[in-house]
Amino acid sequence: MLKIPSHQVAGHHASSRTRGPLIDDSGHFYKPLQGDERGSAEVTFYKQFSSNTKIPDHIRKFFPVYYGTKVMNASDGSEHPHIVLEDLTSNHENPTIMDVKIGSRTWGPEASDEYIAKCFKRDRETTSVQLGFRISGLQIYINEEVGFYKPARDFVLKSSLDDVRLLFKKFVSSGPFDETGLGPDRGWASVVYGGLNGILAQLLELKAWFEDQTLYHFCACSLLLMFEKELALEGGSPNAQVKIIDFAHVTEGRGVIDHNFLGGLCSLIKFISEVVGDHEDHKTQDGDDQ
Amino acid sequence: MLKIPSHQVAGHHASSRTRGPLIDDSGHFYKPLQGDERGSAEVTFYKQFSSNTKIPDHIRKFFPVYYGTKVMNASDGSEHPHIVLEDLTSNHENPTIMDVKIGSRTWGPEASDEYIAKCFKRDRETTSVQLGFRISGLQIYINEEVGFYKPARDFVLKSSLDDVRLLFKKFVSSGPFDETGLGPDRGWASVVYGGLNGILAQLLELKAWFEDQTLYHFCACSLLLMFEKELALEGGSPNAQVKIIDFAHVTEGRGVIDHNFLGGLCSLIKFISEVVGDHEDHKTQDGDDQ
Repeated sequence: MLKIPSHQVAGHHASSRTRGPLIDDSGHFYKPLQGDERGSAEVTFYKQFSSNTKIPDHIRKFFPVYYGTKVMNASDGSEHPHIVLEDLTSNHENPTIMDVKIGSRTWGPEASDEYIAKCFKRDRETTSVQLGFRISGLQIYINEEVGFYKPARDFVLKSSLDDVRLLFKKFVSSGPFDETGLGPDRGWASVVYGGLNGILAQLLELKAWFEDQTLYHFCACSLLLMFEKELALEGGSPNAQVKIIDFAHVTEGRGVIDHNFLGGLCSLIKFISEVVGDHEDHKTQDGDDQ
Repeated sequence: MLKIPSHQVAGHHASSRTRGPLIDDSGHFYKPLQGDERGSAEVTFYKQFSSNTKIPDHIRKFFPVYYGTKVMNASDGSEHPHIVLEDLTSNHENPTIMDVKIGSRTWGPEASDEYIAKCFKRDRETTSVQLGFRISGLQIYINEEVGFYKPARDFVLKSSLDDVRLLFKKFVSSGPFDETGLGPDRGWASVVYGGLNGILAQLLELKAWFEDQTLYHFCACSLLLMFEKELALEGGSPNAQVKIIDFAHVTEGRGVIDHNFLGGLCSLIKFISEVVGDHEDHKTQDGDDQ
């Protein structure tokens, strides 16, 4: 039984009129091939990557499992080829998710001038140039009554540096926060961002690989940061996960590291570290959260 | 006694008709203030940086010592304000030098559209976008008879990825290399790039700071890599040094790391590591250099 994914925070959305991703009950995610060269580029990447023996096992877990391609009825009713992937949210009930597009530059040197100009404008208008990344979308689970905080895509893209800082605090807030942005208490910062299995530890693992790998340049890819608030509420691990997605603009590394992705990744790590650090500082100094 | 520096490899050169840097016999380097806002921006940086207590001592050594400003007779005879700095090459006899402009982007977000367009074009035409850095100039001491290999600025800027790789090999070549580029034996790779006091160790020290510091964004700055071949020939340490120069486009970090510089620096580190690594591999496998 195919349905429209409920936890998608960025990218093209499916409807009866537009083609978008679908999921099934057995944990598959069906992504319609984009019509232009982007679709075939993404398939090429998945095929090449999944059989590439140079990818260390501990790095492979950051990538969605690839199951091939399939021609099937798309969300708009048309017959269309889809990339079949692991549904990353299938084992989550109410996932809190952030889609972070990495890199101060989202275009590759070989793109057309027109495409470069479009990306360049977007990179300057968002935080990409300044921060080395931008938030493309997010949803934060508040509680059963309120459901999710899920700001509109255009609103998120307009975020300033300070807005982004605030969103990273809201992301790990243990209670509701008011719409003015006051009140995110960062209650889950230490368990979600920090800790042995937290998001920071995973990002550092990824960073070590990016300092060395010269196989691919992951242009315009996103990192998906996810966790389950209710698991933390029950006193367990919040199942924090980091995944890389969207490979339509990946190019060959040609012996050069992906300095654009790595720089953005380091910036993200520093940014999140400060949210954790500030939080820990406040706890220590005041005996309570601010 | 003021004179024109003989070991300058990039930037504006002094002559009787154009203003350029001067040096004296006591180890000072006089850099004429650029007429527009760049000159005052660089003075502001030096003043602020030299009194900034947040700069760790082991990092300060990578920066030229700042002695203030001085109005004096410029190389073209006019009276002009100069920035007085440490002459970085004063204790070198025949230094082998490379000027590497770091970052895939040499413009800051606050620059004018016109300036950004100019830098953007240059960044795409050189290796900056692809590699995260470009070689702005170099001189390689060959021997007393031949003197220096010092290719023209425009020639260096046109370098491809492979040309840059070759230049990093030539840089540490122990003998002459022919003009076709064949023959650089990388004889000094292990002592200049490698080792406890080598260039790689210094770059890694700098990298650790850049992963953390959010004080400055070092836009369009260069790393000067230097060593003295004759010292190595005499069996001593080649006095390998790394310095950061050219601060006309430094901006405040505003709590964000300099992901553009850091990404380029990591790419440079990987690039140089491979020159050392290849060399070591060849030595091990063949019992001799290739």
